Amino acid sequence: MDFFFKPRGVSIIGASANPVKGGHFILKNLLKGFKGGIYPVNPGYGEIEGLPCYPAISEVPDPVDMAIIFVPGPGVPAIVRDCAMRGIPGVMIESAGFAEAGNSGRQLQDQLIAIRKETGIRIWGPNCMGLVDTVNKHVFSFVLPSIWEGGFLSGDVSLVVQSGMLSAGFLIDIMTHGTMGISKACSIGNKADVDECDILEYLIDDPETGVIGLYLESIRNGRRFVDLSRRSSKPIVVLRGGKSQTGARAALSHTASLAGDGAVVSGALAQVGVVEANDFKQMMDLCRSLSDYPAVSSKGGGRVAVLTMSGAAGIVSSDFIEPLGLSVADLSEDTVRALSQVYPDWMPVANPVDLWPAIELNGRKKVYKTAFQAVSTDPNVDAVLFHSFVGGIASESDITDLVAIARAGGKPLFGWVMGKRDEVHQFRLHTRELGVPVFPELYRAVECMAAVFRRGRYLQRKSH
Amino acid sequence: MDFFFKPRGVSIIGASANPVKGGHFILKNLLKGFKGGIYPVNPGYGEIEGLPCYPAISEVPDPVDMAIIFVPGPGVPAIVRDCAMRGIPGVMIESAGFAEAGNSGRQLQDQLIAIRKETGIRIWGPNCMGLVDTVNKHVFSFVLPSIWEGGFLSGDVSLVVQSGMLSAGFLIDIMTHGTMGISKACSIGNKADVDECDILEYLIDDPETGVIGLYLESIRNGRRFVDLSRRSSKPIVVLRGGKSQTGARAALSHTASLAGDGAVVSGALAQVGVVEANDFKQMMDLCRSLSDYPAVSSKGGGRVAVLTMSGAAGIVSSDFIEPLGLSVADLSEDTVRALSQVYPDWMPVANPVDLWPAIELNGRKKVYKTAFQAVSTDPNVDAVLFHSFVGGIASESDITDLVAIARAGGKPLFGWVMGKRDEVHQFRLHTRELGVPVFPELYRAVECMAAVFRRGRYLQRKSH
Repeated sequence: MDFFFKPRGVSIIGASANPVKGGHFILKNLLKGFKGGIYPVNPGYGEIEGLPCYPAISEVPDPVDMAIIFVPGPGVPAIVRDCAMRGIPGVMIESAGFAEAGNSGRQLQDQLIAIRKETGIRIWGPNCMGLVDTVNKHVFSFVLPSIWEGGFLSGDVSLVVQSGMLSAGFLIDIMTHGTMGISKACSIGNKADVDECDILEYLIDDPETGVIGLYLESIRNGRRFVDLSRRSSKPIVVLRGGKSQTGARAALSHTASLAGDGAVVSGALAQVGVVEANDFKQMMDLCRSLSDYPAVSSKGGGRVAVLTMSGAAGIVSSDFIEPLGLSVADLSEDTVRALSQVYPDWMPVANPVDLWPAIELNGRKKVYKTAFQAVSTDPNVDAVLFHSFVGGIASESDITDLVAIARAGGKPLFGWVMGKRDEVHQFRLHTRELGVPVFPELYRAVECMAAVFRRGRYLQRKSH
Repeated sequence: MDFFFKPRGVSIIGASANPVKGGHFILKNLLKGFKGGIYPVNPGYGEIEGLPCYPAISEVPDPVDMAIIFVPGPGVPAIVRDCAMRGIPGVMIESAGFAEAGNSGRQLQDQLIAIRKETGIRIWGPNCMGLVDTVNKHVFSFVLPSIWEGGFLSGDVSLVVQSGMLSAGFLIDIMTHGTMGISKACSIGNKADVDECDILEYLIDDPETGVIGLYLESIRNGRRFVDLSRRSSKPIVVLRGGKSQTGARAALSHTASLAGDGAVVSGALAQVGVVEANDFKQMMDLCRSLSDYPAVSSKGGGRVAVLTMSGAAGIVSSDFIEPLGLSVADLSEDTVRALSQVYPDWMPVANPVDLWPAIELNGRKKVYKTAFQAVSTDPNVDAVLFHSFVGGIASESDITDLVAIARAGGKPLFGWVMGKRDEVHQFRLHTRELGVPVFPELYRAVECMAAVFRRGRYLQRKSH
């Protein structure tokens, strides 16, 4: 599949000089980042954007490992055949009007499948937005070139999305919110040939991918998906659309997918360590957390120390922790002793650790440091959940130092942040750089923590 | 209780000229908004901030309906007695060091309760942050005066919070994110006297309050709370801390509260129409949604039309809708006919209504208008959920017109928005002004919609 992800040259069939057309966006996106050969094909132009434009794929010079096709559906099969004749190993069909578009579209898609069988050419799509690879700067997609504005936030989370609009929306939302880096986003559309398993298999071995997140409306080959997941050393997060009856009906008309029996599929996925997501942003937050902590030790089972400045937030954290399969840590005597040093006399040390009265007595910096140090070296603690208010009420202790303390103790650290909008944003950007997942919703923070420990337990079972 | 909320004059006992002290913040906050008499009391000063400062409450001139007390705990009981002698009907004790602070604190609090019984003076607190009333600009709290920066976003949601830090954090978070207006935020602390029921009773009759949201670690008088909730014509949302065993233990040490049996309390609250929240921001989102739609008709039971530009988001919406007690509307023939006019020939009209192919054919403006008009006048539709991408991919149709169309049809409208961070924020501010709840998480949008319809059903049952 390297011809899709790392082609030496790419031809754009249906390239356009018209600046509002998708065939123009694809070309622009290639010009902005792709270092290999770029060969527009369109009989209507001699050149586009300073590049020679070819009348047909047969005229395109070497090397060309992949063609992106963006012409109206009825013209596509003949072009795919030409590409196969030209010796091109793969095409990415981004045009719509196939199985999702009624009977005649379904017939067109059947023609593609026949050509695939006959010639061996691999077909990605149709009805998809292609690939956005922020690490290699390969944007093989008709997504608006404004996606480059502000630069890409690269990371090791790769996405596979059975939805065009959503893949583009996801990316712009995630990148401008700045709270997760992306490696590859693959929009696979109708999956006439290349499907989630093909991409999953590639990503499992891709050194630029650490976590794989998939939005799927069907899993075509459940057995293969389960086998791949079992063999993956990387966390896999799946959001399945169409789990309800009405959802399944909608999935059928969207990408002609048959959604499987919810509970059976869920059980099979859980057994091979796949994390199931419920919602789009929650899926991103799960991916991001598993990217920060792909393999925590589950020896202690997930005993959490909660550091808070709000007794109420500590209580609600406790309410979340146990139903999600974690526990509130029983702090060691050393930790109790260390915290007692900064606590007021009247206040017994407990977990959740309410730091506010201690801060009033000893100042923020000293109390935070003492508390982080104590719980991070506590053998009864497996993870730390901290709460932050930023801006307005409280200037923060230096989070960089606190993260270093938790890391030295080997404890995964998760945060919940509230406060002034801009400062919350800055704090999240900063903690993202530090590799610590911090969320504005408390439940989300605990939920992601729980997923990280569930994976730890899965890895432990697997290693036995 | 008007002496707490609308006093003619307020005395600050423990007022300070030191600009980093809470006793200074209280004075500053009064000066910034309170139009009545302001009387600092502190034997150490002749004047503070240009106001005469009195040595004792007995020296303070009329009118003084309320005293805010911010001196160390051991000195508080005598002061409360002095206030009672002076004829002041209520004190707000914002000092800590009472029942939450061990045995000696508990004894202090017992003294307060004895004085209350003996003299009849009402006591708000101790261990609380008092009141922030953004409508009347009454900030009776040691919250940092920077809370005034950028102005208050007023609304009709009033909060009652058994947590100081959190009440301040909430307010700053909510106000700077700009997605909900607040009327009164009441931090009630240890509830030595004035409790959630007293405040609830006041707010039920308060013309400036439309929705009441409460964070509670205990409900002291369950019977009264249930009776008040039953009589309330306003939506009430409750987040209960300490529902789990460890959470209950933490609540005991936080505000000395005994959390009741979770399931029994939940059942009793549901019967009188109280909405239970799980998390802090979710509680705010529920309050805000119920503020926009306090009494929807539940005749149809909550049949939702989903307008989306992403088939995938439509499918996942369907997956959420039914488990939450709503249903995906079966569109009327008129709606199907109207949508067919803008849909491509090959595409059957279904709900969720995927608008993207129609937009490619007819342009965004026409399609959005057609779709909003069709579902908003459809007798088979009770509510509309719309999805928006803003910035980058798609410039929005004018949401103002679309909201007007939905409103003319009498359909509650909810939105899900993704896209560029700043434009998402602007879109949410704009829709907040239009009175339409729009959320960045899809599940939250459906969850809030479900709460609004649950309330509709409750009101219908109640009216029979």
